[in-house]
Amino acid sequence: MIHVNRPGLTRADADPTGLHRVREPSGVLPQAATRLDTRRELWPDEVCVRVERLNLDAASFRQLAEKHAGDGEAVRAEVLEIVADRGKMQNPVTGSGGMLVGTVEEVGADSPLGLAVGDRVATLVSLTLTPLVIEDGLSRWDGRSEQVPVDGYAILFGRSVAARLPDDLPAELALAVLDVCGAPALTARVVRQYAAASADQAGPTVVVIGAAGKSGSLSLAAARQAGAARTIGVVPTDVEASLLVAADLADVVALADARDPVALSRAVHEAGGPADVTVVCVDVPGCEGGAILSTTDRGTVVFFSMATSFSAAALGAEGLAADVTMLVGNGYLPGHADYALSLLRGEPGVRSLFERRL
Amino acid sequence: MIHVNRPGLTRADADPTGLHRVREPSGVLPQAATRLDTRRELWPDEVCVRVERLNLDAASFRQLAEKHAGDGEAVRAEVLEIVADRGKMQNPVTGSGGMLVGTVEEVGADSPLGLAVGDRVATLVSLTLTPLVIEDGLSRWDGRSEQVPVDGYAILFGRSVAARLPDDLPAELALAVLDVCGAPALTARVVRQYAAASADQAGPTVVVIGAAGKSGSLSLAAARQAGAARTIGVVPTDVEASLLVAADLADVVALADARDPVALSRAVHEAGGPADVTVVCVDVPGCEGGAILSTTDRGTVVFFSMATSFSAAALGAEGLAADVTMLVGNGYLPGHADYALSLLRGEPGVRSLFERRL
Repeated sequence: MIHVNRPGLTRADADPTGLHRVREPSGVLPQAATRLDTRRELWPDEVCVRVERLNLDAASFRQLAEKHAGDGEAVRAEVLEIVADRGKMQNPVTGSGGMLVGTVEEVGADSPLGLAVGDRVATLVSLTLTPLVIEDGLSRWDGRSEQVPVDGYAILFGRSVAARLPDDLPAELALAVLDVCGAPALTARVVRQYAAASADQAGPTVVVIGAAGKSGSLSLAAARQAGAARTIGVVPTDVEASLLVAADLADVVALADARDPVALSRAVHEAGGPADVTVVCVDVPGCEGGAILSTTDRGTVVFFSMATSFSAAALGAEGLAADVTMLVGNGYLPGHADYALSLLRGEPGVRSLFERRL
Repeated sequence: MIHVNRPGLTRADADPTGLHRVREPSGVLPQAATRLDTRRELWPDEVCVRVERLNLDAASFRQLAEKHAGDGEAVRAEVLEIVADRGKMQNPVTGSGGMLVGTVEEVGADSPLGLAVGDRVATLVSLTLTPLVIEDGLSRWDGRSEQVPVDGYAILFGRSVAARLPDDLPAELALAVLDVCGAPALTARVVRQYAAASADQAGPTVVVIGAAGKSGSLSLAAARQAGAARTIGVVPTDVEASLLVAADLADVVALADARDPVALSRAVHEAGGPADVTVVCVDVPGCEGGAILSTTDRGTVVFFSMATSFSAAALGAEGLAADVTMLVGNGYLPGHADYALSLLRGEPGVRSLFERRL
């Protein structure tokens, strides 16, 4: 392991949250910054990763693809521009980023992450706070997929989270799982809490909206494992419905456009709802009202979609006089990476849905 | 009571959520609509209110005032334009609205709200979903205050929530309390849950950010009443600190700019934090990171500010590897209006802070 301490960058200047890399505006955390310092030189608690692949957040990629009407060249140009301008990949409209996979290139003397040079890792903190430099002009990417092959480097802070890639899974597959690993972990926690608190000891009815997607399929598997009495997977198309039925992850598969609140709540009710716990995993805006209408009084809605609008959720529930608990889907829970990988390994249906998307 | 059923507008066409008033885009709930039908004619389950005052949401008013650099005339013109264009008051940037006070003018035959013609009421659902017509050009408003005197009418749906104004309080004061009445109700629920679940039976440490404001002071009073072991009120200025100390609502008053995450978390820690429960009541953007850093592992952050960014909260927690539960502040809980009014009546400190702001 190579430890490097450069004279100019001292321990005292570095902050585990990466504050020392914030250029503009000063005083904010890296995630809120408009511009990060991407210098290659490391502070003592940092790690440099040679990046081989970015995995763009689904809501971000969809926004870019729609903005440019599917013109991959234009999408590529905008991603390059964003990264050059901000020093990180953060979609200015959705505010979201994604994650990366690469190989540890250098480890600062004080890094607490336990990584060694040569480790193949995925970052579990968002690209929106990770200093990033693209060195190949994204020449190997056609702009038509969330998975972006790249050569460049990224910096991890003392408080960053990175996972060594497992040996038994293809890197691309592991990366896709790790990208959304907060969703099944939080879903499982909420379902367990609900099951423990309910008087009748029957587990909750769990509805997952966007159930054939990455976070959706993992959340369905997590809900079932955590004690859901009934799982309902909602998908927007016949094709996804067939895939989800074949994957055997939900007790009932329902077809509805999640942006249509009346159609969504009707479909959920016909499938055995309303939900005690609704998990929103779609990457399109405008699903807040339907999710709330699909949830029972005193139930819980967990929003994982980065396309969620805070005010639409808050005012939507108020406007419907709906006494539901609404959670912001936190992407971090202890053990979330291992848990999500174990679900993939143990559930052939999850694995098949993931492999279709690669 | 006058019940009116017009031949053209039948029961079958009306939906308790107000879907029948949505003009664009079709199929969404009124809150998500860009344009509502403001016709004066009532569907059978609707109520018409003669509006005397709007209370703009704090985040919305601040955005408008800052956009127009305090030019009240320009703020007034923009509010008129928004309402004329959308058929409701919804700030296009913050997505938020506010509430209104007025007198019931007409009650549809099937209205379930229990209101009578002549009742003086405040709406407890947001202006963002309430059909509204302004008939006086806001001629009595200077554009420099959230409280907007107005003559016009608004429509309530079957599932709307409205509270009769209490006889023992000035209307303006009651309206200001009702505007934020979801915050103390949810704060109390979270604090009670926390106190019940914690092994040591000591209540939680509760931090309220923006503690001298309307929702902040009510939330502090609610936290104390619900069993908080220690309450910490955070304010941005010496003036507000003095006011909050005089109001005697917090065990400790701390001074910090909530947009500066390092300064905020340091101030909270020095005041006896970190928090088990952090309640965000400020109306400026960029407070997510500091709130998360001020909260202990497995603690809870409740976001009531309409200036909250969903992605900043979700990715901020992930980026800090912070295992905190984050709640979207739902403006509706059963009994929230009566509870907030009782806090105002019982806590002279809350009342004095409210009266200063009128």
